[in-house]
Amino acid sequence: MSTDDRYDVTVEPAALGATGLGVERTSVVRWREGAFTSAAELVAVEEPLEIRLKAPGLVEESISLTMRTPGMDGALAVGFLFGEGILRDRSDLEAVTAGHPGSNLVTISLTESAGQGFDRLRRNFAQTSSCGVCGKRSIDDLRLSVEALSSDGPFIDPRWLVGLPDEMRGFQQNFDVTGGLHAVGLFELHGPLIACAEDVGRHNALDKIVGASFLAQMLPWSGHVLVLSGRASFELIQKAAAAGVRCVVAVGAPSSLAVSLAERAGITLAGFVRRGGFNVYTHPERLRGVTES
Amino acid sequence: MSTDDRYDVTVEPAALGATGLGVERTSVVRWREGAFTSAAELVAVEEPLEIRLKAPGLVEESISLTMRTPGMDGALAVGFLFGEGILRDRSDLEAVTAGHPGSNLVTISLTESAGQGFDRLRRNFAQTSSCGVCGKRSIDDLRLSVEALSSDGPFIDPRWLVGLPDEMRGFQQNFDVTGGLHAVGLFELHGPLIACAEDVGRHNALDKIVGASFLAQMLPWSGHVLVLSGRASFELIQKAAAAGVRCVVAVGAPSSLAVSLAERAGITLAGFVRRGGFNVYTHPERLRGVTES
Repeated sequence: MSTDDRYDVTVEPAALGATGLGVERTSVVRWREGAFTSAAELVAVEEPLEIRLKAPGLVEESISLTMRTPGMDGALAVGFLFGEGILRDRSDLEAVTAGHPGSNLVTISLTESAGQGFDRLRRNFAQTSSCGVCGKRSIDDLRLSVEALSSDGPFIDPRWLVGLPDEMRGFQQNFDVTGGLHAVGLFELHGPLIACAEDVGRHNALDKIVGASFLAQMLPWSGHVLVLSGRASFELIQKAAAAGVRCVVAVGAPSSLAVSLAERAGITLAGFVRRGGFNVYTHPERLRGVTES
Repeated sequence: MSTDDRYDVTVEPAALGATGLGVERTSVVRWREGAFTSAAELVAVEEPLEIRLKAPGLVEESISLTMRTPGMDGALAVGFLFGEGILRDRSDLEAVTAGHPGSNLVTISLTESAGQGFDRLRRNFAQTSSCGVCGKRSIDDLRLSVEALSSDGPFIDPRWLVGLPDEMRGFQQNFDVTGGLHAVGLFELHGPLIACAEDVGRHNALDKIVGASFLAQMLPWSGHVLVLSGRASFELIQKAAAAGVRCVVAVGAPSSLAVSLAERAGITLAGFVRRGGFNVYTHPERLRGVTES
């Protein structure tokens, strides 16, 4: 698809990675009940993606390397830079460009003013090697100013919420065949699934959805619910808070830091959401029925 | 425990984090079949760990920040630095020191020669912010020289291998109560579980086991099998290859890059290892019965 008209910014179709295949065939030896047989299996594709940044007056540079499942690469890069505070508004973005097919490269071009903002941000980082939580090298760097969202409505119907993982499951095509991919889905409140991404890394799956929403000018997600196919970590809640969502639904368990960040950010965090029930860890007041009972 | 005699290097008992608690109590609102109740739940603890590095003649610096479950912090830091090629031999290590309790800090002191090696390594890194795969900022950085291990024996009995996840499960105490932790276990070939670590991050759980083995001078793991409670990614196989293990057993699915790296590194990689069966993705020749049939 040509996306210029929809996104009002130069986004190369190749950068959206619509052709990216999430699965790959491999041959295995299968052992069952004492006997070996040869078989073919599908595995989730994992490949490195290099994100490069350029802006007028700045030297183009590589700012991130993530192991991801190909597909929606441009959205992943945009979502990652939004979560890091480097892209704040669609007007910051000049272009999203893919490298040649198979190069595993996306280049994000910032406008001059956004490039200067990035340059200031970077000067605050120590000039050393680093890893782990992106760009942060000390615990002080990590204490981000998470703005608390209002804990006012919207009210959420628990009978609707409890069915979301099953509803998303129908869109997790690659998971079904490989068992090896995380998924993140975005639902309109009391409405349908409007976006879903799969990836070997759950932070990548979320970045893909955030980036696609950024490009479509759908952020913040004030009338939406985010669904995670696995556990909820600090990093995922941090990205969710940046996107402005008020409710996060996880199929798995949340960590202690995910709970405390969701509390602070005003996010309703539900965990172990499975047929028949769930736990609400923070801000249960948004669930219809809690305050009435 | 005082560890000087065992490890022949200064390791502060506090740095081993024996007191680290992996779980924390939190209050939740539970929804089941239309009704809300209040309850207490245990969640896996997730906290940042800052790893600092110092050596004679070098300025002490923070080199990594990882979100981890407290416990075995010193081992985690040592294992991480071993995987990155900064610690190669026990003689490179001067001391492992914890910050004050709750500081979430471990400092690794290198000898002068190891410090100079690190300094050379670092000069090869671009001087910019980075993230994702530790210390690597371009795809070229990622093409590590993984030395192929010999694909000669040891032979492994598939009837023994298939039971390893269940055997490890008995040691995953925090998983049982939170559902939110990965585990990594090390077994002697056709023998018992000799080490097990749990963490919100599976790379951390593996670093903990590698680090403990490094301190006890048990590396390389030439007569051992490594068990992963979840999926097998590129990063985990890379760390396993650095530790010299010949067989990796994963309860979940491997990614495409995990398969190709295991193939190249001479590692027998088994996935979906569950009661009754498993798939072998690479080097099945080590499994007793494959070549005979």
